[in-house]
Amino acid sequence: MSIYLDDIPLTEAKERFEAALKSIGMWGILGVEELPLDEKVIGRVLAEAVFAKISSPHYHAAAMDGFAVLSANTTGAMPSSPVDLPCERESSSSRAAYVDTGDLLPEWADAVIPIENVESINLNGSIAENIRQPALIRIRSAVTPWSHVRPMGEDIVATQLVLPAGHILRPVDLGAIAACGHHKIFVARKPRVAILPTGSELIPIGTPIHPGEIIEYNSVVLAAQINQWGGVATRYPITPDTFEEIYRCVVQASETCDLILLNAGSSAGSEDYSGKVIEALGEALVHGVAIRPGHPVILGVIGVNEGLKKGIPIIGVPGYPVSAALTGEIFVEPVIAQWLGRSSISYPKVKASITRKVTSPPGDDDYLRVIVGRVGEKVLAAPLSRGSGVITSLVNADGIVILPRGSQGLDAGAEVEVRLYRNSEELDTTIFAIGSHDITLDLMAQFLATRGRRLSSANVGSLGGLIAIRRGETHIAGSHLLDMSSGEYNLSYIRQYLLDKKLVVLDLVGREQGLMVTKGNRKAIRDLNDLIRDDITFVNRQRGAGTRVLLDFNLIKLGMKSEQIRGYEHEEYTHLAVAASIASGRADCGLGIAAAAYALDLDFIPLFQELYQLIIPDEFYLSNLLEPLVDLLHNAEFKRIVGKLPGYDVSRMGSVAFDLRA
Amino acid sequence: MSIYLDDIPLTEAKERFEAALKSIGMWGILGVEELPLDEKVIGRVLAEAVFAKISSPHYHAAAMDGFAVLSANTTGAMPSSPVDLPCERESSSSRAAYVDTGDLLPEWADAVIPIENVESINLNGSIAENIRQPALIRIRSAVTPWSHVRPMGEDIVATQLVLPAGHILRPVDLGAIAACGHHKIFVARKPRVAILPTGSELIPIGTPIHPGEIIEYNSVVLAAQINQWGGVATRYPITPDTFEEIYRCVVQASETCDLILLNAGSSAGSEDYSGKVIEALGEALVHGVAIRPGHPVILGVIGVNEGLKKGIPIIGVPGYPVSAALTGEIFVEPVIAQWLGRSSISYPKVKASITRKVTSPPGDDDYLRVIVGRVGEKVLAAPLSRGSGVITSLVNADGIVILPRGSQGLDAGAEVEVRLYRNSEELDTTIFAIGSHDITLDLMAQFLATRGRRLSSANVGSLGGLIAIRRGETHIAGSHLLDMSSGEYNLSYIRQYLLDKKLVVLDLVGREQGLMVTKGNRKAIRDLNDLIRDDITFVNRQRGAGTRVLLDFNLIKLGMKSEQIRGYEHEEYTHLAVAASIASGRADCGLGIAAAAYALDLDFIPLFQELYQLIIPDEFYLSNLLEPLVDLLHNAEFKRIVGKLPGYDVSRMGSVAFDLRA
Repeated sequence: MSIYLDDIPLTEAKERFEAALKSIGMWGILGVEELPLDEKVIGRVLAEAVFAKISSPHYHAAAMDGFAVLSANTTGAMPSSPVDLPCERESSSSRAAYVDTGDLLPEWADAVIPIENVESINLNGSIAENIRQPALIRIRSAVTPWSHVRPMGEDIVATQLVLPAGHILRPVDLGAIAACGHHKIFVARKPRVAILPTGSELIPIGTPIHPGEIIEYNSVVLAAQINQWGGVATRYPITPDTFEEIYRCVVQASETCDLILLNAGSSAGSEDYSGKVIEALGEALVHGVAIRPGHPVILGVIGVNEGLKKGIPIIGVPGYPVSAALTGEIFVEPVIAQWLGRSSISYPKVKASITRKVTSPPGDDDYLRVIVGRVGEKVLAAPLSRGSGVITSLVNADGIVILPRGSQGLDAGAEVEVRLYRNSEELDTTIFAIGSHDITLDLMAQFLATRGRRLSSANVGSLGGLIAIRRGETHIAGSHLLDMSSGEYNLSYIRQYLLDKKLVVLDLVGREQGLMVTKGNRKAIRDLNDLIRDDITFVNRQRGAGTRVLLDFNLIKLGMKSEQIRGYEHEEYTHLAVAASIASGRADCGLGIAAAAYALDLDFIPLFQELYQLIIPDEFYLSNLLEPLVDLLHNAEFKRIVGKLPGYDVSRMGSVAFDLRA
Repeated sequence: MSIYLDDIPLTEAKERFEAALKSIGMWGILGVEELPLDEKVIGRVLAEAVFAKISSPHYHAAAMDGFAVLSANTTGAMPSSPVDLPCERESSSSRAAYVDTGDLLPEWADAVIPIENVESINLNGSIAENIRQPALIRIRSAVTPWSHVRPMGEDIVATQLVLPAGHILRPVDLGAIAACGHHKIFVARKPRVAILPTGSELIPIGTPIHPGEIIEYNSVVLAAQINQWGGVATRYPITPDTFEEIYRCVVQASETCDLILLNAGSSAGSEDYSGKVIEALGEALVHGVAIRPGHPVILGVIGVNEGLKKGIPIIGVPGYPVSAALTGEIFVEPVIAQWLGRSSISYPKVKASITRKVTSPPGDDDYLRVIVGRVGEKVLAAPLSRGSGVITSLVNADGIVILPRGSQGLDAGAEVEVRLYRNSEELDTTIFAIGSHDITLDLMAQFLATRGRRLSSANVGSLGGLIAIRRGETHIAGSHLLDMSSGEYNLSYIRQYLLDKKLVVLDLVGREQGLMVTKGNRKAIRDLNDLIRDDITFVNRQRGAGTRVLLDFNLIKLGMKSEQIRGYEHEEYTHLAVAASIASGRADCGLGIAAAAYALDLDFIPLFQELYQLIIPDEFYLSNLLEPLVDLLHNAEFKRIVGKLPGYDVSRMGSVAFDLRA
C-alpha cells in the first residue's frame, strides 16, 4: 500500500494531463452552440469569428438634423451673398430636403447643412413658422461634399473581421455584431463539470453540527468557480467514504459530464478512495504534485480501459479548502479555458516588498497568500496564514506570491511579484493597520467598506506597530503601551522607537482589561495571584503586545516569575484567539478585554482600565486615503456601536492625544 | 421651442441627479433579499456584514492522519530510547488512538503524531499488519503540545467579522460564510431597469433591412451592461416616435421598475420626444451634459408632480451607439452601484504616450477611445475613430483617455492616463501593426487570437508604417512601396527613412492591384487613362499609402495631372473603404486590390502585380511576443486561407527578403 504520494513538478503534471486529454480527443472546443443575439450571451466565447454581413451604416445617413443638399449647389454662398435653395419634400427635383439624424440621404444629395446654420424662409421672404418645412432655405456659407453625412461603411465595411473566435462577449460587442447584420452567434458549448463531495464526516450546509463533523462547502466553492469560468457545474450529494459508493457515483456522473471533480479522499489515508476508484475505472496520470497547498491532487482519465461510454478526465481535489480552491485555479481553469477556446485568465501583477521573512519547502511551488497595499512610495505584501485549512487566508488575500521550486524562502524586504486578485487601482484604497488588535478595528473595517476604503489589519502587537511605522510599512498603528512610571500610554515608547518621526496620536477607546475565565469560573480564579496555581493553565499574548506588557509589569509588581505560570509560553495574537483557547478548554484563563470574553460566552474578571490609541504618521494623517477613517472617529453611529461593546468607553474617541508634527 | 441643449458640466449634472434621487428616497440600498447559501449567489452584494456564528474549526481537529496522544506522555522519547503507548480504540483511558485528518481530537489528547513517524506494533513486538490498528505504537521523539492539531478557531473565531457589507461575493467567500455557520445570506435586491427603445426608423435585430432603417441594438447593449453591473434589465418593444405612445410606455414601465432608460429622442430634433415626455411626467433636471460623445443626455425624475405611484429616475439616453454605451458607464453604473451598496467599478489605469495629435472641444469632457500596447519600453495609446456612431471604436478600444474640460487637445507624444477596459497584463500580448493595410492582417488577427496574441492594426499607409518604426511606435509595419527605378519593393525607402535601423523584411503576399469599378463596369472603364473622363469620379488612397505611390508614379508615366481627376482629393485609408465608396455610389472607381473589390461585389480590372512585405525591427523579430506571428507565416492552414483570396500569391510567405540586422 502506497502511503506516500510521489510529488511531481507542476509543469510536468500539466503536460501529462494535456497529453492524456489529447489522447481521448478532449483538447480544444467541445462543441458549438447557435444562440440568438441578445443580452443573455454576455460572457460566452465566440466559437467562430464574426465577419460583417452588411456595412454599418448600410446607407449614407444624415449625421445631423438639417437639410440635405448637393454641395455643388452651395458654391459661392457667403454672409454677404447668400444662396437660396428651394425645398420640395418628396421630390427628386428638390434642391434641399429636411432630414432627421439617421435618415437616408436623398440620392441627389451629398451633404447635410445643420438646421441651426440655415434660415428657413417662406416664399414671401418672411421667416417660416415651422423651420423644418420652409419654402426655401437661405445659406450663407458653402459646404464641402459629404459634410454631416455618415457614409455607408463608416463604422463597419461588409466582409471585414469584426470579432475573432475565442473572444469573450462584452456588452458593446453585441451592438457591433447586430450592426453588421447578424442576429445569431456561434459560441463554444459550456463544459459540464460534475462535482462529487465525498467523506463520511461531511454534513451539508445548514445541518445542525457536532464536533468531528465538517460542513461540506468545497463543492459550492468549486461550483461557483466553474460557473464563473464559463462552465456548468452540477453538485452531487455527499457520498460516504466507501469504495463502492464512490465508484457508483463516478460512473453515474461520467455519463453526462465532461470533467469530474472528486473531493476529497485524494490523499493516501485509510479512507482515501479517490485514487483507487480512478485506477479501477482508468488511469491516475499524476498522484501528488509538488505544490503547496494542494499537493495531494490526482489527475486522471477514466473510461479508457473500462467499459464506460467515453473517456473523460477526472481530478482528485484535495480536501482542505485552500487546497481545493487553488486546485480549481491551477488545474481546472486552464482546462475549461481551452475547452471554450479562450485564453486562460491572466491576473494583473505588481511588484512588492514582502513584510516579513518566510520559509518555503525547496521542492515545491509555494502559493503564498498576501495582502497588498501602498504605504507612501512602497508597495508592501504582507503574508497571511500558510495553513491550507485557513480559508480566510484566501478570502482576505489581495493576491498570491509564488515561491518557485528551488526557493527556500524570502527575507523580509525581498522584492516579489504578486499575482493580484484585484485590479491594482483598488490597492490605492487599502489602509494598512499594523499593530495591536482591537475589536473596534473590525467594526471600522465594516464601516469603511461602504466608504470606499478597505482596512487590512495585521495583528502584530503594539510594539510591532511602532516598528512598522518606523519602517514606513503601515498607515496607522493601534497601540496601548502603558508607561508605568508616567501612567501615560504610548508616549514614552514613541519617544524611544520613533524619536524624530512626525506623527499624531488619536484616542480611540478606553477599555477594560482583565482575566477571561471559563463560563461560571469553574476554577474560582480571582486575580493574577491565581496564575501560579498548579491546576491553572494560562494562555498568553505574544511579546510586544500591550496586554503582554501589562501582564509582565504586574507580575513584577506582584513578585511573580513567569516560569511559575503554566502556559505562559503559549502565545496568541489576538484577544479573540485567547478567548477561543479558553472556550475550547486548551486553557483556563488569559488576560484580555471584556468584549472578547463575552463574545465567546466566557466570564470576565475586570482588573485594569486602559487607553487604546491610533498612531498616524504626519504624511498620512490628512491624506485623502485616511480621510474617511478620521471622519469615522466623529461619526455618532460608529461611536454608538463601539460604545455598546462591554467595557468600552468612547468618550475621547477621535481627540488628539499628542500632536508630534512640529 | 428650445433647439439647442444647455450643456452643463459633468460633475454638476451628477450632483443634481444625486440630489433628486435623495429627494425621492432612492439613494442607498433599495432592499434586502435573503438567499440560501449556494453557488448561485456569486456576484451578489452583501447587504449585511457576515459575523461568524461558530468558530472554524469548531473543535480541535487532527491535521494529519496519525495517532492522537497526550504530549506529556511522549517526554523523553529518543531514537535510542523509544516510548511505547498502548492503543485502545474508543476508550478514554487510551494513551494513543488512531485519527484521520479532520477527526475530533479525543478529550484527553493534545497532539497528533503523523502515521509515518510511528512504529505500529503487535503485543508480541512484531510489526502490525494493519498499521492503523496496532496494539501499541512506538515513538522515537517527543512531541510538543498542539502539534499537528488544527485548534478550534484557527481559521475563524466566532463573532469575528468575516465579510463586510457591500462586498461582492466571490467563490471562496461562500466557503468562509459556510465555515462560520451560516446557511443564508442577506444581499441587496437587484435594481430593476426598464429599457425603452423609441424611434420610427428602428427595426428589431433579425428583421430584413432597407435603406433609412436602423437596427435597434442599443437596448441589447444597455441591457447587457445593466445585468453585468448587477441589475435586472427589461427590454421593451420599439415605440414609434409619437408623444402619446412614448408617454404611455413610460407610465407603464414606471409601475414595475426602479429606473427607466429612454433611448433615444433625447436631443432636440423634431421627433425627439424624450424631453417632452419627461417634463410632462416630472422634471428634467439636466438636458445636455458637457461630454463628448453623449452630450444630449437627459437626467430626470418622474412621478413627482404627476399622479404616478412613486417617483423614479429616468435617463434620456442619446441614440448614437457610442454615446448610449458611454451614458451607461458614466451615469447608470454609479447609480446601480449605490443601489447595491457596492463601490462603483474602478478601472486599472496606465500612463501612455498618445501616438498622434488630437484636438478637443475645450468646453467638454472628451472621451477618447484608444488602443494601448507596449512597444519596447514605451506604452503607446493610439486614438481610434472619434465618431459617436462608430461602435467599433468601443469594441476595439483597450481603454479611454479623458480630455477634461479646458483641454483643447494633445500633441503627439503627450503623456496621458488611460482608463483600461482590460487588465494591464493583457497589453503585453498586444502586437501593434502600424502601416499599410492588407486583408491578410484581418485573417492574421483571427489566427493570433487563439494563440494568445491580439493584433491591433492602425492603417496609416506604408510610409506611415516606416515612420512609426523610426519612432519606435510599432512592432511590425506592412509595406508595399515600389521603387520604380530598381523594381524592388521597400528597400530604397527603408534606406532613406530607416538608415541605421537593424531590421528584417519578410515577404507576406504577392497581390494584384487594379481598378475597382461598379458591378458590370457600367461606365466602361478600361485603365488609368479613363480617370480624366468628365463622367468619372475617382476615390483615392491617402498620401504615403503604397497604392497612392503606385498611382502617382503611373500618372507621371502616362503624363496625367492629378488636377484632371475628379475625386483625386477624396482620400480613404483602406482598400475596403475605397471599395465601400464605389459600392455606395460615392465614386465610380478607385485603385486597390482584387480581394476588396470582390468582397463588396464590385468588378476589378487588374493592372499591376506587387509585393506586400512585413518590416520587423531586430529587437522584436525573435521576441516571445512575435513568435506566434512569425510561426503563422509558415502555417499551412493560414497560407491556404490567404491563398484563396482573389489575386493573392502566398508562395513566398514568410521568406526573409532582406536581413538588415548586421
